[in-house]
Amino acid sequence: KVVRLAVIPGDGIGPEVVAATVPALRAALEADGHRLDVTSFDWGGERYLRQGAAMPPDAADLVKKTDAVLFGAVGRPDVPEHELVWGLIIGLRQQLDLAVNLRPVRAFPGVPTKVRDTDGVDLVIVRENTEGEYVGAGGVAHAGSGHDLGIEVAVHSRRAIERAAHQAFALAGRRSGRLCLVTKSNAMRYGYPLWDRVVREVGEQYPGVELETVLVDAMAARMIQAPRSLDVLLASNLFGDILSDLAAVLAGGMGMAPSANVLPDAEVPGIYEPVHGSAPDIAGKGVANPVACLLSGAMLLEDLGHTDAARRVRDAVADTLRDTRHHTADLGGNATTADVASAVLHTMESQ
Amino acid sequence: KVVRLAVIPGDGIGPEVVAATVPALRAALEADGHRLDVTSFDWGGERYLRQGAAMPPDAADLVKKTDAVLFGAVGRPDVPEHELVWGLIIGLRQQLDLAVNLRPVRAFPGVPTKVRDTDGVDLVIVRENTEGEYVGAGGVAHAGSGHDLGIEVAVHSRRAIERAAHQAFALAGRRSGRLCLVTKSNAMRYGYPLWDRVVREVGEQYPGVELETVLVDAMAARMIQAPRSLDVLLASNLFGDILSDLAAVLAGGMGMAPSANVLPDAEVPGIYEPVHGSAPDIAGKGVANPVACLLSGAMLLEDLGHTDAARRVRDAVADTLRDTRHHTADLGGNATTADVASAVLHTMESQ
Ligand SMILES: CC(C)[C@H](C(=O)O)[C@@H](O)C(=O)O
Ligand SMILES: CC(C)[C@H](C(=O)O)[C@@H](O)C(=O)O
Repeated sequence: KVVRLAVIPGDGIGPEVVAATVPALRAALEADGHRLDVTSFDWGGERYLRQGAAMPPDAADLVKKTDAVLFGAVGRPDVPEHELVWGLIIGLRQQLDLAVNLRPVRAFPGVPTKVRDTDGVDLVIVRENTEGEYVGAGGVAHAGSGHDLGIEVAVHSRRAIERAAHQAFALAGRRSGRLCLVTKSNAMRYGYPLWDRVVREVGEQYPGVELETVLVDAMAARMIQAPRSLDVLLASNLFGDILSDLAAVLAGGMGMAPSANVLPDAEVPGIYEPVHGSAPDIAGKGVANPVACLLSGAMLLEDLGHTDAARRVRDAVADTLRDTRHHTADLGGNATTADVASAVLHTMESQ
Repeated sequence: KVVRLAVIPGDGIGPEVVAATVPALRAALEADGHRLDVTSFDWGGERYLRQGAAMPPDAADLVKKTDAVLFGAVGRPDVPEHELVWGLIIGLRQQLDLAVNLRPVRAFPGVPTKVRDTDGVDLVIVRENTEGEYVGAGGVAHAGSGHDLGIEVAVHSRRAIERAAHQAFALAGRRSGRLCLVTKSNAMRYGYPLWDRVVREVGEQYPGVELETVLVDAMAARMIQAPRSLDVLLASNLFGDILSDLAAVLAGGMGMAPSANVLPDAEVPGIYEPVHGSAPDIAGKGVANPVACLLSGAMLLEDLGHTDAARRVRDAVADTLRDTRHHTADLGGNATTADVASAVLHTMESQ
């Protein structure tokens, strides 16, 4: 079988971590007799500077011809951030209608963390991925008058909440049977109370899953204080964004957190991307941690049904991380991106 | 001089931590020859159940007759949360127009934390306190039709941003000269970009303060990864809420985080309250940690110009915490609320 992979390396360290990942995915597939067919798209900041748009208007159609997308990162200091965010990654998430963003966080043995006692941390944030605070609605009244009023409109639809909730309950059912919904219904009166209501209703279809509802502020503290009390979290677009960066700390930092933008049971390709950004400060130095991207690649293989190949990548990453000589600077080591990539490949070959 | 203190013990552990605090404030003032005159208001969940409202309609006027308010906590399982939140604490903050919520977090020697390497952590979150995501605007379209759409409107006015920014810059000027603004302007296009713009403008009046702007997701991770890189943070109502619960973890948890709702340079009394809630699970057992409330009391004394009395309370709390026998359950000890209160009083007497 052939896996048709779209690759969007993007900006900053994006191309570096993607380059460290594609060979591992290829090797993992070839070990099972499959082939990886890569189409690379030069979308991102450079294209914006050259052509005035981060991606072409038919970008969504182009990636729809592939099985899955591996995305690096976007963002560069000389391009207005929203041109790359709305013009590329949020744009694609919404145009492809990728309902949820799955953000697993797992503590790997051997990786140091700033939080004590993270052994065994293994949680997944199911982030609604198409709306909420990310709809881009609103405006500025009285602009420039000295009485400017910025109005930001968040939209939470039953449809989007239901889609995300079904994913979260199903996932919780396959894992611990516990689901934690994160809202802020004591302060926000319409959107989050609707979340509470709809998720409770969806939960009636999953009697085996126990639902707990936690306020986002309390959850932020609990994530650090008692991370092992958490398994599957369900959150809005904004809360999922904040909590997933925070959760990454439990695994050693942003260099460790993979994600999958998916619309399960649909024909549309998922976008798999490290949670970290383009990190312009370390870009071009070859020192970025490729683990988040490698693990995103493993999620990609898993979702395409290449379970063994996915496991091989994941196991090789875990094995590699046991040895501090393969830790990049963010983990306190001095390995290069290429060091990690070749250690992972080597480990896969000797498995 | 007489300090006229309004006390709102509220629900759950609120009355317990307030009872542990008032004697310390009194002792600290009397040591300087001042007097504490306490008016207690029975506002909260019980009043709601009895009279249908958590506080009377003239509540704001009543507290305006005092110099400052010490507030415990509200929330009880048998009362709809918004009745107590909007009907009391958010209501009072907004009616008194208390522009900012100051939330200092300091690591005390001797107090264990889940985060490694917190020695010397000492930061303050300046939270905008009157609007943003907390205006209560919005609605539900198509309610109950199966296509419900929850719409939540956040309002960010130049006036409120400027007020909060001036506080934050002035505070940063008296401290490290560094201010970190927290927004999310890559995803939200109107409110947070206005924050970025207005805060930058206000900053021109504070050439001695260096301004950095950080995305809220990145800040959540950085707060745990590199807390000592932070001094004064300026955040919207929602982001300040989330980040202050998180920051409390650096000091040992929610039981350690005080706050002050204030409108500086105005005649209106500030509301001083622990950041934690009513904690119904441990209420009535006498085991709540009163430190957050005691430190809120110290902020109250400080703002009323009783600098020495404030210092006495703070020093006594710090001294008390050095001894693990005075740690409550949340800090891993088995001291009761009363144990801590009497240890603090005793330490103050022997100073
Ligand atoms: C780049 C940014 C808009 C994005 C988001 O907020 O979704 C990023 O932080 C993420 O988490 O993928
Ligand atoms: C009770 C709740 C509305 C409140 C808030 O969100 O402001 C609390 O969490 C706080 O931080 O004071």
